[in-house]
Amino acid sequence: MKRTRVKQALNAEAPVEGIMLKGWVRTKRESKGVVFLELNDGSCRTNLQIVVDPGVAGIDSLDGTGTGAAIKVTGNLQASPGKGQKWEVQAEQVELIGSADQESYPLQKKRHSDEFLRGIAHLRPRTNKYGAMNRIRSELSFAVHQYFRERGFYYIHTPIITGSDCEGAGDMFVVTALDPDKAWKSPAEFGRDFFGKKAHLTVSGQLPAESMACALGDVYTFGPTFRAENSNTSKHAAEFWMVEPEVAFADLQDIMEMAQGFVQALTGHVKKYCSQDLELFSRFVDQGLEDRLDSVLSQPFERISYTRALEVLQDCGRTFEYPVQWGLDLQTEHERFLCEEHFHKPLIVHDYPAGIKPFYMRVNDDSSTVAAMDVLLPRVGEIIGGSQREERLEVLDRRIQEAGLSFDEYWWYRDLRRFGSVPHAGFGLGFERLLMFITGVSNIRDVIPFPRTPNMLEF
Amino acid sequence: MKRTRVKQALNAEAPVEGIMLKGWVRTKRESKGVVFLELNDGSCRTNLQIVVDPGVAGIDSLDGTGTGAAIKVTGNLQASPGKGQKWEVQAEQVELIGSADQESYPLQKKRHSDEFLRGIAHLRPRTNKYGAMNRIRSELSFAVHQYFRERGFYYIHTPIITGSDCEGAGDMFVVTALDPDKAWKSPAEFGRDFFGKKAHLTVSGQLPAESMACALGDVYTFGPTFRAENSNTSKHAAEFWMVEPEVAFADLQDIMEMAQGFVQALTGHVKKYCSQDLELFSRFVDQGLEDRLDSVLSQPFERISYTRALEVLQDCGRTFEYPVQWGLDLQTEHERFLCEEHFHKPLIVHDYPAGIKPFYMRVNDDSSTVAAMDVLLPRVGEIIGGSQREERLEVLDRRIQEAGLSFDEYWWYRDLRRFGSVPHAGFGLGFERLLMFITGVSNIRDVIPFPRTPNMLEF
Repeated sequence: MKRTRVKQALNAEAPVEGIMLKGWVRTKRESKGVVFLELNDGSCRTNLQIVVDPGVAGIDSLDGTGTGAAIKVTGNLQASPGKGQKWEVQAEQVELIGSADQESYPLQKKRHSDEFLRGIAHLRPRTNKYGAMNRIRSELSFAVHQYFRERGFYYIHTPIITGSDCEGAGDMFVVTALDPDKAWKSPAEFGRDFFGKKAHLTVSGQLPAESMACALGDVYTFGPTFRAENSNTSKHAAEFWMVEPEVAFADLQDIMEMAQGFVQALTGHVKKYCSQDLELFSRFVDQGLEDRLDSVLSQPFERISYTRALEVLQDCGRTFEYPVQWGLDLQTEHERFLCEEHFHKPLIVHDYPAGIKPFYMRVNDDSSTVAAMDVLLPRVGEIIGGSQREERLEVLDRRIQEAGLSFDEYWWYRDLRRFGSVPHAGFGLGFERLLMFITGVSNIRDVIPFPRTPNMLEF
Repeated sequence: MKRTRVKQALNAEAPVEGIMLKGWVRTKRESKGVVFLELNDGSCRTNLQIVVDPGVAGIDSLDGTGTGAAIKVTGNLQASPGKGQKWEVQAEQVELIGSADQESYPLQKKRHSDEFLRGIAHLRPRTNKYGAMNRIRSELSFAVHQYFRERGFYYIHTPIITGSDCEGAGDMFVVTALDPDKAWKSPAEFGRDFFGKKAHLTVSGQLPAESMACALGDVYTFGPTFRAENSNTSKHAAEFWMVEPEVAFADLQDIMEMAQGFVQALTGHVKKYCSQDLELFSRFVDQGLEDRLDSVLSQPFERISYTRALEVLQDCGRTFEYPVQWGLDLQTEHERFLCEEHFHKPLIVHDYPAGIKPFYMRVNDDSSTVAAMDVLLPRVGEIIGGSQREERLEVLDRRIQEAGLSFDEYWWYRDLRRFGSVPHAGFGLGFERLLMFITGVSNIRDVIPFPRTPNMLEF
């Protein structure tokens, strides 16, 4: 008999004679010799109730096991007299596939703390919450690809190992094939290394994506990126996934428009396709979740220049920990005030001082700002950073020099400005940040299956 | 005026008054004062002809430039009198956006060698061949996600940085945040490193994917994986993408069936959605391509046990360089003979000797073989390797010990066998190998945008 998934069974339109399911027992209880099992196979959040009457073949195999055990059930799908469930299975046979010792199985029928569950990240997807999280993460990933494909973008796999040691976005990990169990004598060893020079893990696919955009027009990356910053916060991980569209012939206005549409489309997609899983988060994790998602969907994002934002901050009468001064970067406290207290909605801040932004951002006519933009969302803060790229070779060269970088390293990047250079722009969206926004989960460690943070490399 | 993509214009059903395009000039020729441009914007392989009559506004801006230049054109889309093209644009205005010096622009109108183009990987997507390659790569990626989503699989991002130093698939790169420009004194330094212990780049997402399959049922990964083997061949790269489905309650038969269906579905998808780009490869790269793709689509893959395969090799009367002996791995020459000369079709070899396979593969009842399988395709060889996983704790423990590995490191992997253990199976498909098969391109460096191989870390 072909196996039926729990999700299919729950969506049945009529009773089914002869059905076979496999999955894991979430709970087991007995009443007058009848065993009631809640069966989950990961296909959806809801369990399917299995009723095992006394004398059913295999019922004895359930003795001494319960939550966490894997079983096979054959029987009939029939209307359930129970409350809140349409269907249940009347078992004709049960078979224990893999037992779970009730004393030692860590996931008992109670609520566990997020911190406890991080320690058993290999088992936490078996809980309702982390099952839902992983299903949402999967569907959100698909939404990314579908969004771009429908708009004629091509997906590019930019390199993870990079020879560049300054992509302008943070500290980098070093990658080596030299045997580090032997002491290194000097930096010159890199000449003997796998790539013949020092190698790093990428912090962004942007630069290579630019070269693809200047050939294919509209491209995006979606892959892992890395930061070696030793900061133990709830919003930073050493390894996270980023979505980076790059668009030829686009300017800052175009990608601000696109960033808003992208966030709205992804949020709408999850609301549509993950409603059952999402409901868990709005019920148990963040009761303001639905309103916040709707507020993103229902209105255009506010836009404000950095210069104007500073005026708002200076005039608001609030005392901040960090100085509010033109030329300094906005701190989280400033961003939160603007987004959550002043505008009460998603916010795009644009045209930042050139001095605090990387060399590749396009210098504005005022010479003092660049065509950069950040998208801020309530609660999670910055979710997108982007810019129009400097397409004028002479300006780019000046910025490379001012940043103390070498032309040699960027010869190919400069080539893009020598041959058929075009205005182009793009942004990077932190995929985990978006998941945090969509689910209301406040720690990045809980939206990645196996998080990598300082001193955490388990699994 | 809103910009029209070349692909849209070429697919027009009627002439269009007032159209605006932006893109790059592929060729420029003049005849009696009329300038003819072939415009490409990356949206598709075919160029759109632009006719610029004498006196058209901006025509002078094209003086001294040509191939590689970026332009903006406004005009009318009209039926083309030219051969092989339905539409052309009669320009009313042209504007030079970014020039390309004809002396120094590396991509002139002639065929360049693959090797030359590898040296300018930042520009090669501007050629017909590498434009087509990148569009096919993008569509093939989408096909992967669509295939699994339609079948209820969840996409999992397994970690890239791993604490495991033996995933059983090859040499690993080391990842460190210690400053390697300072000499290291001793191996003990890793205790001070970012993760507090030695970190590597993953060679496979399988082990973490197993833990997700044992919760969500049907999962897959699709991400970069790494090998630090210093082998300079046309089939190996240090960084490549792998697709790894992992299926709970599945056995070896199930995933052999699935592997065949997956390869057929992806091949069929590309044939359907990338016909124009694919045609380039069957015309210019590999004239047997169409037949080979059809042979994959039209018949089931042959299946043969390792033991039976050895008999075929021993009885074939052929002399091989490497010994044909039970217990030794099959070499490329053996695989090619079986696949290309003996069976003349895709081949699955299964049930390999336990001694040459990793600890996690399920031991068969004969005790001497494991439930492993490799899928071999004509010309590219091994494209998939998979197995049923050992779900019996006591057998797994014995294999871990035989392999000289420590229980401590695999505590969580062993937990999957302690709590609700189920038969499960999966495989890994080399994404670049599949692209090589589908396009007929023989060097892995030419199916990845920016390949990483020994001593090659440019771009």
